Amino acid sequence: MGFEGGQVQNAIYVAGESPWPISAAEWEARAAEVLEPGPFDYIAGGAGSEATMRANLEAFERRRLRPRMLAGTAERDLAVEVLGTRSPAPFLLAPIGVLSIAHPDGEVGVARAAAATGVPLVLSSAASHTIEEVAEAMGDAPRWFQLYWVNDREIALSLVRRAESSGYRGLVVTVDTLTLGWRPRDLAKAYLPFLAGEGCAQFFSDPVFRSRLEQPPEEDVLAAAVAMLATFPNLALTWEDLAWLRGQTELPLLVKGVLRGEDAALAREAGADGVIVSNHGGRQVDGAVAALDALVEVRDELGPDAVVLMDGGIRGGADVLKALALGADAVLLGRPYAYGLAVGGQEGVEAVIRHLMADTDITLALMGARRATDLDRTWIAASS
Amino acid sequence: MGFEGGQVQNAIYVAGESPWPISAAEWEARAAEVLEPGPFDYIAGGAGSEATMRANLEAFERRRLRPRMLAGTAERDLAVEVLGTRSPAPFLLAPIGVLSIAHPDGEVGVARAAAATGVPLVLSSAASHTIEEVAEAMGDAPRWFQLYWVNDREIALSLVRRAESSGYRGLVVTVDTLTLGWRPRDLAKAYLPFLAGEGCAQFFSDPVFRSRLEQPPEEDVLAAAVAMLATFPNLALTWEDLAWLRGQTELPLLVKGVLRGEDAALAREAGADGVIVSNHGGRQVDGAVAALDALVEVRDELGPDAVVLMDGGIRGGADVLKALALGADAVLLGRPYAYGLAVGGQEGVEAVIRHLMADTDITLALMGARRATDLDRTWIAASS
Amino acid sequence: MGFEGGQVQNAIYVAGESPWPISAAEWEARAAEVLEPGPFDYIAGGAGSEATMRANLEAFERRRLRPRMLAGTAERDLAVEVLGTRSPAPFLLAPIGVLSIAHPDGEVGVARAAAATGVPLVLSSAASHTIEEVAEAMGDAPRWFQLYWVNDREIALSLVRRAESSGYRGLVVTVDTLTLGWRPRDLAKAYLPFLAGEGCAQFFSDPVFRSRLEQPPEEDVLAAAVAMLATFPNLALTWEDLAWLRGQTELPLLVKGVLRGEDAALAREAGADGVIVSNHGGRQVDGAVAALDALVEVRDELGPDAVVLMDGGIRGGADVLKALALGADAVLLGRPYAYGLAVGGQEGVEAVIRHLMADTDITLALMGARRATDLDRTWIAASS
Amino acid sequence: MGFEGGQVQNAIYVAGESPWPISAAEWEARAAEVLEPGPFDYIAGGAGSEATMRANLEAFERRRLRPRMLAGTAERDLAVEVLGTRSPAPFLLAPIGVLSIAHPDGEVGVARAAAATGVPLVLSSAASHTIEEVAEAMGDAPRWFQLYWVNDREIALSLVRRAESSGYRGLVVTVDTLTLGWRPRDLAKAYLPFLAGEGCAQFFSDPVFRSRLEQPPEEDVLAAAVAMLATFPNLALTWEDLAWLRGQTELPLLVKGVLRGEDAALAREAGADGVIVSNHGGRQVDGAVAALDALVEVRDELGPDAVVLMDGGIRGGADVLKALALGADAVLLGRPYAYGLAVGGQEGVEAVIRHLMADTDITLALMGARRATDLDRTWIAASS
Repeated sequence: MGFEGGQVQNAIYVAGESPWPISAAEWEARAAEVLEPGPFDYIAGGAGSEATMRANLEAFERRRLRPRMLAGTAERDLAVEVLGTRSPAPFLLAPIGVLSIAHPDGEVGVARAAAATGVPLVLSSAASHTIEEVAEAMGDAPRWFQLYWVNDREIALSLVRRAESSGYRGLVVTVDTLTLGWRPRDLAKAYLPFLAGEGCAQFFSDPVFRSRLEQPPEEDVLAAAVAMLATFPNLALTWEDLAWLRGQTELPLLVKGVLRGEDAALAREAGADGVIVSNHGGRQVDGAVAALDALVEVRDELGPDAVVLMDGGIRGGADVLKALALGADAVLLGRPYAYGLAVGGQEGVEAVIRHLMADTDITLALMGARRATDLDRTWIAASS
Repeated sequence: MGFEGGQVQNAIYVAGESPWPISAAEWEARAAEVLEPGPFDYIAGGAGSEATMRANLEAFERRRLRPRMLAGTAERDLAVEVLGTRSPAPFLLAPIGVLSIAHPDGEVGVARAAAATGVPLVLSSAASHTIEEVAEAMGDAPRWFQLYWVNDREIALSLVRRAESSGYRGLVVTVDTLTLGWRPRDLAKAYLPFLAGEGCAQFFSDPVFRSRLEQPPEEDVLAAAVAMLATFPNLALTWEDLAWLRGQTELPLLVKGVLRGEDAALAREAGADGVIVSNHGGRQVDGAVAALDALVEVRDELGPDAVVLMDGGIRGGADVLKALALGADAVLLGRPYAYGLAVGGQEGVEAVIRHLMADTDITLALMGARRATDLDRTWIAASS
Repeated sequence: MGFEGGQVQNAIYVAGESPWPISAAEWEARAAEVLEPGPFDYIAGGAGSEATMRANLEAFERRRLRPRMLAGTAERDLAVEVLGTRSPAPFLLAPIGVLSIAHPDGEVGVARAAAATGVPLVLSSAASHTIEEVAEAMGDAPRWFQLYWVNDREIALSLVRRAESSGYRGLVVTVDTLTLGWRPRDLAKAYLPFLAGEGCAQFFSDPVFRSRLEQPPEEDVLAAAVAMLATFPNLALTWEDLAWLRGQTELPLLVKGVLRGEDAALAREAGADGVIVSNHGGRQVDGAVAALDALVEVRDELGPDAVVLMDGGIRGGADVLKALALGADAVLLGRPYAYGLAVGGQEGVEAVIRHLMADTDITLALMGARRATDLDRTWIAASS
Repeated sequence: MGFEGGQVQNAIYVAGESPWPISAAEWEARAAEVLEPGPFDYIAGGAGSEATMRANLEAFERRRLRPRMLAGTAERDLAVEVLGTRSPAPFLLAPIGVLSIAHPDGEVGVARAAAATGVPLVLSSAASHTIEEVAEAMGDAPRWFQLYWVNDREIALSLVRRAESSGYRGLVVTVDTLTLGWRPRDLAKAYLPFLAGEGCAQFFSDPVFRSRLEQPPEEDVLAAAVAMLATFPNLALTWEDLAWLRGQTELPLLVKGVLRGEDAALAREAGADGVIVSNHGGRQVDGAVAALDALVEVRDELGPDAVVLMDGGIRGGADVLKALALGADAVLLGRPYAYGLAVGGQEGVEAVIRHLMADTDITLALMGARRATDLDRTWIAASS
């Protein structure tokens, strides 16, 4: 038998003091204390009126679990395997860019926490540390690479090749950010960390990108950052382009940002191995459907055998299990681990991960299920 | 290709500081700071318990957008044309009276912002600047005239003739304010700016109105203001009167204030070229249906070919798009630009307009649509 | 044509300052300032968790009006006639006991305000002034008498006879208070004003009641008050008793406190001329259905010709009209006038009444209806 | 006729001051004042985001009672009998462990209050006072014993035998706590009172448990506490084990923690005499269905003759009656009496009990019912 949530719990109680916050609200509050408003709001905020951020949370609150008793759950298995990558718990770390604004260790701190816990990291192409640095920090631990599909195919391919060479075992193509969303918190402060050279590591280290510059980034950070940002807008992309990308790599390919059943079907037709239902944490289309609601539609469209992940609104073990019951093969954890990083670097991220594993394991046990994969919609109450 | 939302966004980030608020809440808060309570509440408040004001906003929050990905939206067109008047974005500036209480430049400031952005202005007949002054400020820029249908037909017709002569290309007849609503904020302060001569410009400058007075307004403002107010109550009007008005002008005629399908049909029968679904921003009938809900009913009644606009609750790009998806040909922006005027005069209004255009454009692009007119009800999620 | 809401409005604006609060919230806040916590909470509070108080208000907020435009409403008639009693507006003043705790003038102040406005008063049998004093204060103005059906039939009959003799034209029998509800605010302060002799006027002045006492109330107020309270519990009553009471008086008889259709039918069978749907302002059964929701059930049961009134949650003109549209022949106004009394005595009550009349009239006009009695359920939007 | 709610009410009013809080909110607030954060949050808090705690309360707020008038309710009977145990009111005191953290008198204080009022106590196996001490404090007063089914069958049986010998007339087996829930408030403070020897009375006094220890608890409290806690995790249990336990005792056996109809059926098949629908006050599975909603499902599954109790969210008389109307034979009162204990020891608990009895009795009378057992679903309004 694997991970035991009760051991995490016991260790805290026996120690007589908790070194870390426990509730999601407290983590966020602590992060707000340690960060300047610019970085904090960049992480915490969303698009427009932030209605989609609220909707993501409300969709979990609205749904209710139906626990079974005396189901014999002493032996449990929280692990999932998604497209050949195993996680000891039914979640991965979502790609989040520019984590140097949360903590100097940035994605390397996160990577070490991921490796220490075995939970796969999806490294962002807008990270503050390079594909190679993160790979080195993780050793053999499982990792995927997230691609912002920039408008320069050679740069995009270069990033993919580097990920392949560095042991990343999955490619997550984000399709919901072909231009940046309208984010009032950031705009009000004119805070865009990339302009200060933060979150540019993949590009500044990329030979193809560097070949596009007149001067190396080391000599003119602003010009390089502007050049990088200029590669992001790519709204001309279509599903046919995805088929092309599919042909460029042997890595399992997941499309992140799907919110409709028909788009999920298009992704599959274009050769994607899986989809990640997501509204980018409410940071792109304000007023978009809640991720959990979209998950139901996507799973209905693709049927039981497709690989479907989701993110948006995961704050505790109950959320993980609700998403699994409604059709997710696994979920991605986002802001909570960024707060963990802000509060405590690698150790903070580890605490967030271990707490969520423990909460998920305990809740699964108390729910009367032995495997995360046992849950289906009969475990969710009809809304009342 | 036309307007690019990303350019507005980029300009703010690159400048390193935003000269203006971004979120609707922040604009309102800033306006509350710069204005005295009387003017601020006159603009911000509504009728009775303000339940309809809340309903207008809730109707948008309740509905959710269903974005499509990889739809190839690099080329977009935000523009709409309504009854021969083109707007670069699917909104116009709603008629708001007595804007001198928000800023000394009043409607002239707004008019210059409208002209600068190309967004049409619907000038109020309760404005602080005359039809002619506003026309001069706008040059060839598109504008309509809003008529409070006063109980003196000759005065009403005189206003219409002046609008015709001054290049206004549409006539918006407001039918929901044949007497003033019961507005607790204003009543509690006994604040009615017209009594101080504010918002009387169209009448004080009107030869027919002046001919009704014993003394010119310049000599007895209060008497003239009272005389003007005395022309407003006109509850005897019926749809037959509208047919008469229809016969008096060649201008496209829109009826503003429709909340029922059957009234929309009556407006069409009486010769109106279009209707504007509106509850006057919740300022007239407290407890009335949300404008967005009424829009659905009106569009259902009139069918796809009728010209249907709406106002009430538009605060961001997602709201614009939701209204379009639910049947509006365009929307009218109200309080937000009045707050812009209060905070920064013409420049403030321009900022509000450009931000909304950018937000709408970016959201449209991220939604997977190329034209504002592409949206229909399949883009809205069934409520959950 | 009768009352003109616009005149009330104009008078306030022209005066340049409002002597009174306007919104219901402000009246309540001002009352809370001028009253001690005991009296204020006695008036403002309810039973248990006050869930029914909240439900009463929520039932109005949930429903939305559907205004019609250009319906020709210059001539309106707000008046209603209920069982031979005419009111200039579709509301009456609900029976509220012990108003001396709100203002020294108590029910006499209210009575004078009622007489001045023509709105009928339903005098409570727990009032601080006698049937005769109130009658004298009202002259010919319309009034009904409310009976708490005490457990001493001779006392009850004596009160009825006095009401008959003093020109009260209707008898309202309250059936929802056969014992006092569980009211945490009052219990926490052990505040029951009757024990101090407040609200005992009908009994202390009643010859039959006095004949039951060993000492007159003037000599031992506490003993008399306790004796009075001892007559209140009367839970043995059944509908057969109502038939008996029906036989004792020629006055129109209304049963107040009905919340079910079947009870409304029983009331009619027992000879009642009308019912008042009410949950006693949420002061008796905590968790009971909202009065407005019960109104729908009761009207459905009794059909269009029965006399059905309601109270509970009326705070503005929109509420009056919603209740009329959902089946009420008239409504009763409760707490708002008690706050008016607290804030300004008779003049405060008059202000509350005139404001509500004006608000109702203006809202009716703007709704596109000419008579309060024109409204039916087609004026209410299906909830969304 | 039995208990009279009005007498409790009268006594408070006549005394002229209330020695105790009345509303549930005030009791909780007072408890928060007198307790340290550790103990208070241990009692007040729940699992995860506390969504189930909120759901428990919301399920009551959402449902509305439909009172009947003039039903002749002078004679009432609040009493219920459940599996041979009579309560003067339709509730029992729920098992709550470790009450020494609320007040030095702990469960003995509660037991005396239970005995004084006749309301049965379900003594927790995690209590601070022994089975025998509590029995002695209660004399002949009715009591049940709650069993945390620890992973050492001999210890569990020993506890059952002691309960049998000490006059406990029912055995409540809790099946929802086979491991401890994830409770952020406690974890954040690393507060687990058992580690300080609190709440260990049943075990430290148990001969079988003591035989397992190397040193008696008196010499090494921590080691004994850890040993006790080690007996709690028992997730291997299945319904077959319940059948075994059923065979070990003649006591009526109730299964506490059922949230699904199918589990209720399994409990019956395994020989349980009754079920208690409960989510452990929201302390175990965060996001679980509200207890009141689960009650409806369980009663539907088991039919009208089964014994079904519930707890979770009972705060006032209306809640008791709503649960009865929706299918409960009786309810269990939890946190409110713990707050009573914290605020006033035995007297505080008695006050809470008597207040709830009075509130329930008065509300029943005003509802138009004579017996708590008269209510069924026709007394609940369809949600609107």
